[in-house]
Amino acid sequence: MDQINFWIGIIATIAFAVTGVLAIADRGVDLFGVLVLGVITAIGGGTLRDIILGVPAFWSLSQIYVWLALGACVVTFVAEAFFTQPQIYRWMLYIDGLGAALFGIQGVDKAWTLGFGLPVAPVILGVVTAIGGGLLRDILAGKKTLFMSHELYAIPVTLGCFLYVLVLNFLPQYTLEGSVVCMLTIFGIRVAAIRWNLRVPIMFITKTR
Amino acid sequence: MDQINFWIGIIATIAFAVTGVLAIADRGVDLFGVLVLGVITAIGGGTLRDIILGVPAFWSLSQIYVWLALGACVVTFVAEAFFTQPQIYRWMLYIDGLGAALFGIQGVDKAWTLGFGLPVAPVILGVVTAIGGGLLRDILAGKKTLFMSHELYAIPVTLGCFLYVLVLNFLPQYTLEGSVVCMLTIFGIRVAAIRWNLRVPIMFITKTR
Amino acid sequence: MDQINFWIGIIATIAFAVTGVLAIADRGVDLFGVLVLGVITAIGGGTLRDIILGVPAFWSLSQIYVWLALGACVVTFVAEAFFTQPQIYRWMLYIDGLGAALFGIQGVDKAWTLGFGLPVAPVILGVVTAIGGGLLRDILAGKKTLFMSHELYAIPVTLGCFLYVLVLNFLPQYTLEGSVVCMLTIFGIRVAAIRWNLRVPIMFITKTR
Repeated sequence: MDQINFWIGIIATIAFAVTGVLAIADRGVDLFGVLVLGVITAIGGGTLRDIILGVPAFWSLSQIYVWLALGACVVTFVAEAFFTQPQIYRWMLYIDGLGAALFGIQGVDKAWTLGFGLPVAPVILGVVTAIGGGLLRDILAGKKTLFMSHELYAIPVTLGCFLYVLVLNFLPQYTLEGSVVCMLTIFGIRVAAIRWNLRVPIMFITKTR
Repeated sequence: MDQINFWIGIIATIAFAVTGVLAIADRGVDLFGVLVLGVITAIGGGTLRDIILGVPAFWSLSQIYVWLALGACVVTFVAEAFFTQPQIYRWMLYIDGLGAALFGIQGVDKAWTLGFGLPVAPVILGVVTAIGGGLLRDILAGKKTLFMSHELYAIPVTLGCFLYVLVLNFLPQYTLEGSVVCMLTIFGIRVAAIRWNLRVPIMFITKTR
Repeated sequence: MDQINFWIGIIATIAFAVTGVLAIADRGVDLFGVLVLGVITAIGGGTLRDIILGVPAFWSLSQIYVWLALGACVVTFVAEAFFTQPQIYRWMLYIDGLGAALFGIQGVDKAWTLGFGLPVAPVILGVVTAIGGGLLRDILAGKKTLFMSHELYAIPVTLGCFLYVLVLNFLPQYTLEGSVVCMLTIFGIRVAAIRWNLRVPIMFITKTR
């Protein structure tokens, strides 16, 4: 399982870096900005989580995540035309959804294992892990954050993290199975949202004035 | 006194969440964003303070603040029409001012008790506690921060925190009375500013070009 | 050497505060905002570095940096007309470049000495120290961050920090000389960029759409 987690983490990091770069490619960012913003997208959420948890940033212990993100950013910058093909881009979004699912559940797990602010904080920190990097990127690139995009992104992540906390609390003997189910829940909703362009229903959105 | 502090803290958290949601309600934010941004308004300042102090985030120890903020956000989202009535909204601003006063003085107190960077850092961390959550909210919602609003908000908070540090340093036997006086100073200026629409005098504002 | 470092640090802090205030003077910021944003420009990068490192913020131990930055902000606010003279402003930019050079190398040094995430993290934290304060200021003032300005600022800093990590790793007996050379590399490129208005070549910038 650790082995699988590791590989999904690797894939997710790369996907986050790629989609991060594509998200800000239209802002006239220089190559240095591409590297920084792509890396922040990939490792920023986990870094925020670790700062709030008061533990060393995860990439200070396993630097492979930084290297992979940097490599993915360079490749994306050079081969932007490839990644922006509709078919390829959609695949990237799917992998990004898988990454969000994994990062969210991993975040819950880390906070829960450390006994940090049970039971509320693990949900919060799972969501922070999954969406924090994208938020930092959007702020630094001067883009609207996902709170105003009405995409079904943070909601499935929150739902999955919440379900996983229920599993950890009430069904601790099924942690492994539960984590897989919760990841698939997040990933499934994300895939459906991308596939059928589902968005947050208008009744749940405040009126712009 | 702890009892009173606790209850003012409860009321302040709710007021911050309500005014936080109302501040971003015109941005077309979805319900999830309302929850996140309202909660960040309410607990973000204290979280920043605790991160700089290197202590666990206060809400990891007393989760009631998160729950209250969440509840207040949902109520505000549903009953927005109620809260935006001029009379009610003004009351919310008053309570928000009381909250800023309490959070500021509490922030000074926490840093002072920990002996963190005396005597300058407690003032800074008091201000961070009171205005940090609103700043995070505005950044995430893409709004101008209070530095450009010319409201008399951060200035009375800073003044009160500064006075309280003077009390802690030179009149330690009057800490309790001093904290009340400093809170009332902040609250009084805020009430006056809301009541008579007082703003930062133009001579203290840089020219826009 | 420590003596020299201390004085360059003093000068750099002042220069960062001055250029920080000038950078946001056209945003209609009030005096309080001037103080906060100037101080954040000067000490924000080191604060972010220390938070990620998990050590107390440097200004909680040596408050002189806060006082100097505050003083420099007030002077800049009052004497803005003086500092915006083209000749004086250019000098400020040069000193700011010296500050970025020093802060970057200091950041690498601190992370390296703590053995934090060698060898990648020291480069990242050196860059964070040098540009983090300016980023925070731009975010809070609602300005475009340097990633979209195409200035040769972050790139020389990164180059110098990277070179310094090479020195620390492969030529530890030349740490002192190496740090001077790396600082001069950053400073030299900055001076050239200011003097001849060099910018990031267009081929390294993503197309705005």
